[in-house]
Amino acid sequence: MKHLLSTSDLTRDDAIRILDIAEDMAAVSTREVRKLPTLRGITVVNLFFEDSTRTRISFEAAAKRLSADVINFAAKGSSVSKGESLKDTAQTLAAMGADGIVIRHPASGAPRVLAESGWVDAGVVNAGDGTHEHPTQALLDAFTMRRRIHGTASRGRDLAGVKVLIVGDILHSRVARSNAWLLKTLGADVTFVAPPTLLPNGVGVFGVDVDYDLDAALARVTPDVVMMLRIQQERMNEAFFPNGREYSRAWGLTAERFRRLPESTLVMHPGPMNRGLEISDEAADSPQSTVLEQVTNGVAVRMAVLYLTLAGESAGPNGGAE
Amino acid sequence: MKHLLSTSDLTRDDAIRILDIAEDMAAVSTREVRKLPTLRGITVVNLFFEDSTRTRISFEAAAKRLSADVINFAAKGSSVSKGESLKDTAQTLAAMGADGIVIRHPASGAPRVLAESGWVDAGVVNAGDGTHEHPTQALLDAFTMRRRIHGTASRGRDLAGVKVLIVGDILHSRVARSNAWLLKTLGADVTFVAPPTLLPNGVGVFGVDVDYDLDAALARVTPDVVMMLRIQQERMNEAFFPNGREYSRAWGLTAERFRRLPESTLVMHPGPMNRGLEISDEAADSPQSTVLEQVTNGVAVRMAVLYLTLAGESAGPNGGAE
Amino acid sequence: MKHLLSTSDLTRDDAIRILDIAEDMAAVSTREVRKLPTLRGITVVNLFFEDSTRTRISFEAAAKRLSADVINFAAKGSSVSKGESLKDTAQTLAAMGADGIVIRHPASGAPRVLAESGWVDAGVVNAGDGTHEHPTQALLDAFTMRRRIHGTASRGRDLAGVKVLIVGDILHSRVARSNAWLLKTLGADVTFVAPPTLLPNGVGVFGVDVDYDLDAALARVTPDVVMMLRIQQERMNEAFFPNGREYSRAWGLTAERFRRLPESTLVMHPGPMNRGLEISDEAADSPQSTVLEQVTNGVAVRMAVLYLTLAGESAGPNGGAE
Repeated sequence: MKHLLSTSDLTRDDAIRILDIAEDMAAVSTREVRKLPTLRGITVVNLFFEDSTRTRISFEAAAKRLSADVINFAAKGSSVSKGESLKDTAQTLAAMGADGIVIRHPASGAPRVLAESGWVDAGVVNAGDGTHEHPTQALLDAFTMRRRIHGTASRGRDLAGVKVLIVGDILHSRVARSNAWLLKTLGADVTFVAPPTLLPNGVGVFGVDVDYDLDAALARVTPDVVMMLRIQQERMNEAFFPNGREYSRAWGLTAERFRRLPESTLVMHPGPMNRGLEISDEAADSPQSTVLEQVTNGVAVRMAVLYLTLAGESAGPNGGAE
Repeated sequence: MKHLLSTSDLTRDDAIRILDIAEDMAAVSTREVRKLPTLRGITVVNLFFEDSTRTRISFEAAAKRLSADVINFAAKGSSVSKGESLKDTAQTLAAMGADGIVIRHPASGAPRVLAESGWVDAGVVNAGDGTHEHPTQALLDAFTMRRRIHGTASRGRDLAGVKVLIVGDILHSRVARSNAWLLKTLGADVTFVAPPTLLPNGVGVFGVDVDYDLDAALARVTPDVVMMLRIQQERMNEAFFPNGREYSRAWGLTAERFRRLPESTLVMHPGPMNRGLEISDEAADSPQSTVLEQVTNGVAVRMAVLYLTLAGESAGPNGGAE
Repeated sequence: MKHLLSTSDLTRDDAIRILDIAEDMAAVSTREVRKLPTLRGITVVNLFFEDSTRTRISFEAAAKRLSADVINFAAKGSSVSKGESLKDTAQTLAAMGADGIVIRHPASGAPRVLAESGWVDAGVVNAGDGTHEHPTQALLDAFTMRRRIHGTASRGRDLAGVKVLIVGDILHSRVARSNAWLLKTLGADVTFVAPPTLLPNGVGVFGVDVDYDLDAALARVTPDVVMMLRIQQERMNEAFFPNGREYSRAWGLTAERFRRLPESTLVMHPGPMNRGLEISDEAADSPQSTVLEQVTNGVAVRMAVLYLTLAGESAGPNGGAE
């Protein structure tokens, strides 16, 4: 795998291979020294055109556990802010010896342009582009579901028949998009639940079900997973909600709604959460919540992705340079 | 030692143990390769809700000399600035595998909340909280005094009978607070010297003497140590000083006052100094000044604290993973 | 070599030694693990009083490939912004154990003050000071010319007889200054080409030729190298150019001018480029352009400089601590 740009590029076998290697990576964290020499001498640049401390730190931790050198490049205050093009910035980083570029960019499609332009030889990992995709988030979500559902028998398994509701601001959510592609590929049944104003046109392309009423959807589907999306306050007006309380009443996983869920239903959220808005404390802090597992699994999944895109073909995850 | 939150938590034996291990750490800097493998595979997050480049770099240097991986998290521009709670931020970092959290926070008590809430399993080190405490600063100050006073015979010793004046803005100074607790525990005689407007209510709780006149205090006490605090310009009005010259005349360690000190009296300052305000060049650059030794010792003391809070119980400071 | 402050300090032998060691360093990048243990246990601080992401990352990558620990210090938001002096900042960093200080500063001469004041014992590398010098840029430019002109027979060679035009805002360009000194030392023939308003007074001190008309200079000299400087938009008025199109027409390496160059003439630019202003896409992206090689060679040259200033005298570039 040279790049990771979109979950829509992944076959079922690709996806399962990533998840299985992430299982190996997760096991590293139980060792006394939680580092692998796999990427020793490899340089990973975190090229962030938008602030995202969480995602940047997760990739940084993943790269360091594989013994890579990590260089953080925040576009703010750099020559980018003086008008340098993505092409020149990326070529410059590659010329300095960046083997991998983890890119977060406000423009949908920027990572693919970077990877497919031939500008750079480095592996490119999409860490979120505009409202388009966030593939490592979808992979860590799938990894988390698989582990909760199949436990120690996860390896090689997909998510066939798992019923997932994705709730909230679908329109602006790269998380929803990447999850929809990946979950379908893994055999899950996905339903988007959102007010019509927060759904993209042509949502049919995702091959998912759509519901405009959360209570109706919960009753109809009996979901295995409810994934709540972060609502951005500035979207409130667009969605014709006067305020947070209204939003929460209609689309939030309130304490009352949470109590109606089966005890086996997982509650997921990509973070950071707006507690009291799209999710209640009762839901977020319950044993059904996987919020912190998602964060932990994010490091293992990113280790797997960096390994697959940056390590030589022949090296196994425990092999490499030492 | 699981956390370091306040010097008031430390017994005399605890404090001496930290200072003695810091002596070992200081010796590392004389080796050809000034790194120990002690914390290899351990991740330390510098979680800074306030800018403090000096303190952050000192902890970063200390962690790297112990071979830890260091991740810097500045709250600015992060999800914290989008309203994420301390709880969610800290849990997220711990879920990513942070073994230690070095926290600087504007709210007094935030590190203790973090450590005692059960939110995270990581070791928590207070790197300065509000106007409350800055325990590693007090430890490095005590270490510096002990070395200057007892020389190579420092190990196992305390500061019994050492007379310390702490001068300036006591009210807002976490450095003064942490020093007062620790120095009393180590047997020193401490006097706070400040205008009444810059002293906290109930100063008696510290068990220190108080003086409102610097010249009188210098004459009465004949101090072994004069510790000058940084005055913040914005405090000037609160203290009813019209300007820096007035402040300096009454409370500064001017050249004239400095010349009145015995040659054995140490001049300390936590930095950064306002030269010409609370301290004169003559005092700051004299052989009696320990300002740079304090900085150097800061790294050794922080190595000791990270070692004690993060290394496994069985490992000695030279042991560990390699 | 204790410091690198100015290319005017370098003898021909010094310069060739640096370039030859940079050849060794460039060869490291062809190894499977592109790291040398040479600076293990050494701490390099990037002390940047001005933003310069490219230069900072290049030094960071160079230091990490030599296994040094790197600490980034941006003056913004630090105690420097509270008025701390360069002396106190530098002494503080040295006291924390900085072995090398890579300094970028807006004041011409600041690195030399730091190095020659006796304030710190650390090696000092000038990463750009005011409008004064940027010596590692000049060294990487010379390295790039030598490699393109002499190929694998570069070692030990200088640039005798190589004809170099340096075109644009000479007045404000530390790159032009450092290049002029170094190229003369290496035997090249240098011509500055600029409008009179963008030339320094007393340009004769550089021992270079001067031309006020780019087309005339190109016709007269038949250059081996054309080095285009970055024009800063805010300089436009000073130069009495109404706008970018005017500047480009008179002083830019337009497609038309580029086509008039011999095919063997190298096109250089220190980056970041203003495409369409001082350089056209045709020139920047042609096989004659060395823009990306300059970036790549920058890491090798900085590895050589860090090695020479920071490694013990006895160690060879492959020797050191492991």
